[in-house]
Amino acid sequence: MTIGIVEPKSITFDRELRLESGRILGPITLAYETYGALNAARSNAILVTHAWTGSAHLAGRYSADEQKAGWWNEIVGPGKLLDTDRYCVICSNVIGSCYGSTGPASINPKTGKKYNLSFPVITVRDMVRAEALLMDHLGIDKLLCVLGGSMGGMQALEWATQLPERLASAVVLATTPRPSAQAISLNAVARWAIFNDPTWRKGEYRKNPKDGLALARGIGHITFLSDESMTAKFNRRFSAKDGLFDFFGQFEVERYLSYNGYNFVDRFDTNSFLYLAKALDLYDVAWGYESLQEAFAQVQVPLQFFAFTSDWLYPPYQTEEMVNALKELGKPVDYHLIQSSYGHDAFLLEHETFAPMVREFLQKVETGI
Amino acid sequence: MTIGIVEPKSITFDRELRLESGRILGPITLAYETYGALNAARSNAILVTHAWTGSAHLAGRYSADEQKAGWWNEIVGPGKLLDTDRYCVICSNVIGSCYGSTGPASINPKTGKKYNLSFPVITVRDMVRAEALLMDHLGIDKLLCVLGGSMGGMQALEWATQLPERLASAVVLATTPRPSAQAISLNAVARWAIFNDPTWRKGEYRKNPKDGLALARGIGHITFLSDESMTAKFNRRFSAKDGLFDFFGQFEVERYLSYNGYNFVDRFDTNSFLYLAKALDLYDVAWGYESLQEAFAQVQVPLQFFAFTSDWLYPPYQTEEMVNALKELGKPVDYHLIQSSYGHDAFLLEHETFAPMVREFLQKVETGI
Repeated sequence: MTIGIVEPKSITFDRELRLESGRILGPITLAYETYGALNAARSNAILVTHAWTGSAHLAGRYSADEQKAGWWNEIVGPGKLLDTDRYCVICSNVIGSCYGSTGPASINPKTGKKYNLSFPVITVRDMVRAEALLMDHLGIDKLLCVLGGSMGGMQALEWATQLPERLASAVVLATTPRPSAQAISLNAVARWAIFNDPTWRKGEYRKNPKDGLALARGIGHITFLSDESMTAKFNRRFSAKDGLFDFFGQFEVERYLSYNGYNFVDRFDTNSFLYLAKALDLYDVAWGYESLQEAFAQVQVPLQFFAFTSDWLYPPYQTEEMVNALKELGKPVDYHLIQSSYGHDAFLLEHETFAPMVREFLQKVETGI
Repeated sequence: MTIGIVEPKSITFDRELRLESGRILGPITLAYETYGALNAARSNAILVTHAWTGSAHLAGRYSADEQKAGWWNEIVGPGKLLDTDRYCVICSNVIGSCYGSTGPASINPKTGKKYNLSFPVITVRDMVRAEALLMDHLGIDKLLCVLGGSMGGMQALEWATQLPERLASAVVLATTPRPSAQAISLNAVARWAIFNDPTWRKGEYRKNPKDGLALARGIGHITFLSDESMTAKFNRRFSAKDGLFDFFGQFEVERYLSYNGYNFVDRFDTNSFLYLAKALDLYDVAWGYESLQEAFAQVQVPLQFFAFTSDWLYPPYQTEEMVNALKELGKPVDYHLIQSSYGHDAFLLEHETFAPMVREFLQKVETGI
């Protein structure tokens, strides 16, 4: 069963948000979607948090002729993992993004112009503060679960540590307590690609700086895949249109990265890309604490973690560091290392593998075991 | 003991070279250096082959006030692994490079202008053909050993398969029978960074296109290190000069990549970088054969292989594929997997670890065991 036609929603809060940086951002608009109905006790809400370039359009279609359904349609709907006959599933676009929430491409009401680089640097913790405003608005005191992968997993971790009384559980996929120097360096060269593009003009472009952004996305794309998955998909096939000894001849993998990179230019704002990359790099669940242990001492609810063997962006050992810290603290934690060749993207693609484990976890949470 | 003052040498061959592509290149100049004396039997020559951005300046200094010695000075000299009291060590700059050998920045004698993109696409096999001309010139029929890492390892493999009667052994470090789709994709985004630079002008630049080349090098640099070594060296340290919430604030790893990238612009030609990247991507030891087995059936001498655990550019499994193929063919092969956190760069840095094994291997080759 599919979820059918869904409706984009939006809310603007008249209050301002004090950010981790100390700067003030407001008014704040969040784009969001909901699927399924809130029960009378308001206890069946699940928040799905999205990754870097995701949106609030988690599932369903806006109209019958929309080609693609929401980005994680496979797990949301009647009878699916996040069963909309039982749960009220919510997805909010993060602040900093360009899909309807306040971000660098939004108009700053104080100047009447786009924020561009006057937009403040935001953190994942700031994103979660904004999401909490949305829950207030929806009248949800306590989420049954916050579930997300990659940057979505970071948000789930922030909910569990910063707002521990406002959720009953969290499912954290393919994430890290803090990106490693290698992960940062890969974002650094992506940033650099954009900074090198003369049409970026320090963020004051009229049209997306396409060559820089496409390349930045191409670099990111490599980090989402794996050696194994790239070999399986492309191996060393050479473009049939090119001669092997043409200077500009391309391997298929090269064409693929280029094609997808330039497609990305049509759908994502460059400054948003940069601000969210920054939020990823700055992410540290122990930000403001002495240690990971001290941060995780805040956790009051069961957490379930998934890591994927071929994920080299946020490798399993980084999830395992969190799992071990929680165990040492005697916190309820469930961990699964999933064998997968899909790399970081596995968290989106391996849903058939992890769905039964998440289902079981949610059942335990609901029945209070 | 150090090798002391050394002298750059150069030879121009009046004959032309027919390349793998079918194109003709000539006349060809090779820059090279030699250390130690050739014995009367001309049987003590060792060729060291360099990697992507290496040069013929393997060891020693050109003058007493040259700051840095040659790129692998640690292993060449009296009493060192490649003992210049016993061996005549030779290093040749590859064709396509910008360190004295014929490459895209050379003047095409037919036009009186730089080749730039009219330079033919070359392969590692072509590099080795040119090196064989140098050995003819030096009167060396048979090398005692060809030793190299990364692209140098590819050259050693070509010597062993294409000119099997012209060497007595080869030592192959941190290399691959053919780069994987992931390795190709990382070169692809480096290329793309240069193509995006408007000052590159399809290769017709007057000054190196610095932003593109620096970024391309930055991307390459990440592939030479490892998650572990980057964490050890930089972890998540933030530049003391920048505010954590400055949009342009940098992590130390980011500054390091940028600093080294821009330094590289002063020492390497962009078109050479592109031509050699192409040679790396196109490399396949089985080029022209039905299989790896068929290619390795040509091998007549003992090969020694080293792979390094944290090398994710040319991971150990790729070396092991070669080792297994040779073993199945009953060829003499010696393989060592070295535990190292240095990533691909380990082949240069772990010489103290592998030197005893290479020494033992060379002794066996010399005594004919």
